[in-house]
Amino acid sequence: MMGLKNRQSNDVSTGRTGRFNLITDVPGVQVGHTTIDDGNVHTGVTAILPQTDNVFLQKLPAATHVINGFGKSAGLVQIEELGTLETPLVLTNTFGVGTALNALTKAMLAQNSDIGDTTSTVNPVILECNDGDVSDIRKMAIQETDVTMALENSATQFEEGAVGAGRGMMCYDLKGGIGSSSRLVDVDQQQFTIGTLVMSNFGFLRDLVIAGESIGQLIFDYLKQAEKKEEHGSIITIVATDAPLDARQLKRLAKRASVGITRTGSFIGHGSGEIVVAFSTANRVAHYPQNNLESVIRYNDDKIDQFFRSVVGSVDESVRSSLVHAESVVDRKGKLRMSLPAILEKMSQDETINHELITKVQQELGLI
Amino acid sequence: MMGLKNRQSNDVSTGRTGRFNLITDVPGVQVGHTTIDDGNVHTGVTAILPQTDNVFLQKLPAATHVINGFGKSAGLVQIEELGTLETPLVLTNTFGVGTALNALTKAMLAQNSDIGDTTSTVNPVILECNDGDVSDIRKMAIQETDVTMALENSATQFEEGAVGAGRGMMCYDLKGGIGSSSRLVDVDQQQFTIGTLVMSNFGFLRDLVIAGESIGQLIFDYLKQAEKKEEHGSIITIVATDAPLDARQLKRLAKRASVGITRTGSFIGHGSGEIVVAFSTANRVAHYPQNNLESVIRYNDDKIDQFFRSVVGSVDESVRSSLVHAESVVDRKGKLRMSLPAILEKMSQDETINHELITKVQQELGLI
Amino acid sequence: MMGLKNRQSNDVSTGRTGRFNLITDVPGVQVGHTTIDDGNVHTGVTAILPQTDNVFLQKLPAATHVINGFGKSAGLVQIEELGTLETPLVLTNTFGVGTALNALTKAMLAQNSDIGDTTSTVNPVILECNDGDVSDIRKMAIQETDVTMALENSATQFEEGAVGAGRGMMCYDLKGGIGSSSRLVDVDQQQFTIGTLVMSNFGFLRDLVIAGESIGQLIFDYLKQAEKKEEHGSIITIVATDAPLDARQLKRLAKRASVGITRTGSFIGHGSGEIVVAFSTANRVAHYPQNNLESVIRYNDDKIDQFFRSVVGSVDESVRSSLVHAESVVDRKGKLRMSLPAILEKMSQDETINHELITKVQQELGLI
Amino acid sequence: MMGLKNRQSNDVSTGRTGRFNLITDVPGVQVGHTTIDDGNVHTGVTAILPQTDNVFLQKLPAATHVINGFGKSAGLVQIEELGTLETPLVLTNTFGVGTALNALTKAMLAQNSDIGDTTSTVNPVILECNDGDVSDIRKMAIQETDVTMALENSATQFEEGAVGAGRGMMCYDLKGGIGSSSRLVDVDQQQFTIGTLVMSNFGFLRDLVIAGESIGQLIFDYLKQAEKKEEHGSIITIVATDAPLDARQLKRLAKRASVGITRTGSFIGHGSGEIVVAFSTANRVAHYPQNNLESVIRYNDDKIDQFFRSVVGSVDESVRSSLVHAESVVDRKGKLRMSLPAILEKMSQDETINHELITKVQQELGLI
Repeated sequence: MMGLKNRQSNDVSTGRTGRFNLITDVPGVQVGHTTIDDGNVHTGVTAILPQTDNVFLQKLPAATHVINGFGKSAGLVQIEELGTLETPLVLTNTFGVGTALNALTKAMLAQNSDIGDTTSTVNPVILECNDGDVSDIRKMAIQETDVTMALENSATQFEEGAVGAGRGMMCYDLKGGIGSSSRLVDVDQQQFTIGTLVMSNFGFLRDLVIAGESIGQLIFDYLKQAEKKEEHGSIITIVATDAPLDARQLKRLAKRASVGITRTGSFIGHGSGEIVVAFSTANRVAHYPQNNLESVIRYNDDKIDQFFRSVVGSVDESVRSSLVHAESVVDRKGKLRMSLPAILEKMSQDETINHELITKVQQELGLI
Repeated sequence: MMGLKNRQSNDVSTGRTGRFNLITDVPGVQVGHTTIDDGNVHTGVTAILPQTDNVFLQKLPAATHVINGFGKSAGLVQIEELGTLETPLVLTNTFGVGTALNALTKAMLAQNSDIGDTTSTVNPVILECNDGDVSDIRKMAIQETDVTMALENSATQFEEGAVGAGRGMMCYDLKGGIGSSSRLVDVDQQQFTIGTLVMSNFGFLRDLVIAGESIGQLIFDYLKQAEKKEEHGSIITIVATDAPLDARQLKRLAKRASVGITRTGSFIGHGSGEIVVAFSTANRVAHYPQNNLESVIRYNDDKIDQFFRSVVGSVDESVRSSLVHAESVVDRKGKLRMSLPAILEKMSQDETINHELITKVQQELGLI
Repeated sequence: MMGLKNRQSNDVSTGRTGRFNLITDVPGVQVGHTTIDDGNVHTGVTAILPQTDNVFLQKLPAATHVINGFGKSAGLVQIEELGTLETPLVLTNTFGVGTALNALTKAMLAQNSDIGDTTSTVNPVILECNDGDVSDIRKMAIQETDVTMALENSATQFEEGAVGAGRGMMCYDLKGGIGSSSRLVDVDQQQFTIGTLVMSNFGFLRDLVIAGESIGQLIFDYLKQAEKKEEHGSIITIVATDAPLDARQLKRLAKRASVGITRTGSFIGHGSGEIVVAFSTANRVAHYPQNNLESVIRYNDDKIDQFFRSVVGSVDESVRSSLVHAESVVDRKGKLRMSLPAILEKMSQDETINHELITKVQQELGLI
Repeated sequence: MMGLKNRQSNDVSTGRTGRFNLITDVPGVQVGHTTIDDGNVHTGVTAILPQTDNVFLQKLPAATHVINGFGKSAGLVQIEELGTLETPLVLTNTFGVGTALNALTKAMLAQNSDIGDTTSTVNPVILECNDGDVSDIRKMAIQETDVTMALENSATQFEEGAVGAGRGMMCYDLKGGIGSSSRLVDVDQQQFTIGTLVMSNFGFLRDLVIAGESIGQLIFDYLKQAEKKEEHGSIITIVATDAPLDARQLKRLAKRASVGITRTGSFIGHGSGEIVVAFSTANRVAHYPQNNLESVIRYNDDKIDQFFRSVVGSVDESVRSSLVHAESVVDRKGKLRMSLPAILEKMSQDETINHELITKVQQELGLI
């Protein structure tokens, strides 16, 4: 099952989701995972293909927004300048960026014999979080074939949770990972889709709020565990749409991702690198344009609130979805990192706990 | 009474407030209002004195953050470049910016005979929201004396709600205005204060969430009123502290204001200009330095999360406080613009309404 | 005669200028001055009408670039966010910004009865430099009628030099002020125009370089005058074009203005506020759009170098033109502030000076 | 011999250089090269060690400035957020970034067993230009050992020109590469050093200006070669200092690099990625601070112009020095890519050429 079963309360968007309730509801977008579990290595790669054509030849309008720049993602500078995306997006762990860059560069070179020969180079985009709490990141375990496989595995349906690059990620000290959602927007008799995907690796347990309830504090008290001293997580957010929004407008969309991210209680900690990439599959930019002047569709800012609302609702749901779909994982030191569903289930069977609140949260998350 | 009576639920900060639970808990900070009610004009001026000394001679480290730049505030560019604040901050309505600039400039010239003669000019900072829904803004009613009076009225205790520049502001389609709060932070045996003040003029009624409950939707259904089509509001946020944070760190604090703002349900609408100014009263920058190299105190980023949490908690409470303290106002067209307390009180006396939810919200807000 | 007579050496643009070699070569652009000389007040206002239609109803794609933010210009934040210009541009002295805001706001309100009533407010753009060396800026002499007159005086032909807002400005310690130039660009059988206008008030005399010669040093030695200790000048640059460039592309154009500015030797001093506004008269944005999706022309970035070159060439020439057209002015303390042509003429008659170099500079500037 | 022999004309700085006239005049800074010439591969790696201590444990205040973001450098986002540099800087070709990231990460892991285990990860900074005109960049020839060797080779004296990462770089269509210079600044009885290093790979031949003369146009006409259609170059600039400047001030320094870069005639073309990293070796930031509040030295902005001037002068000289020290190289297609000294020497022996101008340029560059 993908997405969350139930309509979220307090969703500022209309709540109407696309077919799969995934980023791949945006036509042409595909996602693929490579998940690595090998001894104390629990990591992986997630690839997002932004469209089915050769994206180097048919670039997409794109923007980035850095909410908190404590991060090591690559490829953002050129998107900011030129407002275009010209490769798939690859998500992985912090120390996998170099290898992912090499692998994605080679994939682009294999597809395009002109790159670096008769035309310019290419700008691969690699996004990362630090999964070092769960996985032995110092091993630098990501191989180029892991990236290639994720690219090749890409499809319109994909798993969420502790898979791909999300394998070792922790969200609110619970098992996090990949989450995704989508929203539909109607404009002038046309329907557009907003799709979002997050790699969630942020937040302190005590801050987690679901359905307005401080469930994180309750779990924290229940577990009596030592709170982590400092956050060295991150959250990567991808926003996709088929609406004809230009780079400036996509940047405005990207900024709203932070509202969705913090709906679950986070305050954007010092150590939480939070980076957003947004792209549109409309108004593509040809690498070899036939003319210097061409006609494109412009979307008016005055009605952009529907998209803003959809980004907030979809990112908020993506974060929750990453928590809901993640399975518990044993970390590099042998400690069980429980998922939110698992801990809620356990607490629901404990006589000493307020069952009403647990039930409310489980219902909000579509778990029961 | 200032601030909110009750400890907020889901407050990411410690919740410990300063003496007044106002921005003026930061030593030296003072706030003054001029409120104007004249026929269909309902507007005013709010002045914030950042310290008691001559701020031009003893500038303060400062930063700005533009969450959504649909706004007309003046003076931000130089703060961004030099990282210093050298005048009081004046808040007023959009079309009062020019007159406020003139009045504040004259006040600075009167205080400093060197400005514009033997030394540089001065950078007055004016922040604004559009109160045109309630007040006839086209009359450009703000006079220079209104600004001077607000500066002179400044004190450590001040009113919140529909006063000063907040007189005509609407928040979530309810009466908004000025709100303020503070938080205490302990570091290395020292205590620092974060104080915040907002001028709230943003949000759609249906989006308002208090204590995790969609109270805005309930009020919306109750009032059966036509929803406003587009937002042309804004929120101005001021963050003050006596902690020795530099311009870069203050910018990071300013960014966290958006988390506090959106805790009540808003999604940062297209038309909502959202601008933050943050300053520190420590490590002042002399206009005429005795030496080019001087010793200052540096605060380490690694422990900055306590300040981030305090900004989020204090800004969130400031927004609620602006709603709680605002009185209902008759707008320029004779329509009663109800305050949140008034509408909650009315609904609590209506048999057809879910009293449990109303009571929960009233309790969260400290109204009962 | 407008512009410079001679083809500049080392011009990276083609050097082909429009009809007047002024910013007004961009169809629809008009410029008007009000010059004030009253006792020790030597200041003024320069207005730039970006197009002949109601610019609030038909906004223009626009961008700003802050080279050095030591400045007090107003209206930049909203251009940055929305990428549109919706008023004329008004240039004046630093302490005239408030009054210019008021006057421009009133002019917009008079033209548009919906502003602040049934629709949003308006974002007036005021740009400033500090003319306090020459004029008694503390008198705050600018009146609203001065701004209105400049707007009404606007025409396709206008004077350069020590006129309008440029009356009291100093450039390289010589008399500066308003300068303008234009360049033609051919793309796909179409011809576009880049027009630029500067208000020059920056630079140290010793740094002035013309035709590769350190003429500033030579003049400095000749005058044996005390060098000013600190720069508290600025330069405002306006870039206009009829090419269909969007906000992102206009920002890239705006960035190239700094190359043109520094060609004459400046290094962008600490106290020199350097701000650029760029706009396009193509692809206008309706305030009341008929549809949310509409067709516009997109210009490809791959051929944008022609525009970059034109901006550099035209801004460089605008700076020189401001120096060449400025007349000498007696400053607020009775001291004669000589123009570059006047000092070169004087030096050319001095037996002790290297006449070859003077002649070369005079020729480069089209003075002989 | 390092640096240029002669005092440059039109140098806005004092012109006083450090001992070596290299970036390594800043105490603790070291530079090392690995140069690769293998068939049609002409590339390499240049490493800059910013200080002699463990830079991860003793981070340096740092800033970045993106003049034109058409580039693929890695590690900039975190510098921008935290204002610190925590690794050496590695320069290489565009497709070597991934491998350089891996190698530098491994070097940091080897040095610091806590990274990615008990503490955070690390932010390696890799800067790049596209040397694909000269070298077969598609071969992705850079190996991790090349990076390690460059780090190990680092010393206070190093070669300039077509060495290290500069091996395949072209500047103004002439052989470019690594260039470096330094300037001394006196403040309050203390002496500070500004050191700069560029990897030059930008500019169109016709735009090259030396000593105010359009030497590029002259060479262009002489060679009668086809002008390159589009620029896909770049220039990377590193600014180092031992003055106690914080991140905001270093960003202001970094912005002045563009003035130095364009002094030789360039206009910052669309395809020329221009990126600056600036760091200070003073006021280091401990990874494990003993206290959260500590005393540091602040430098006053009012006297920062001396540093701005030094950056402009030193970067300008670094660009020239990269041209002067580069040797001619045979490119990947067998074509001789001449150095500026070589072509000037050749032209000086041609009877048909204006020898006076050639001699002037040669003298300015210290070639004769």
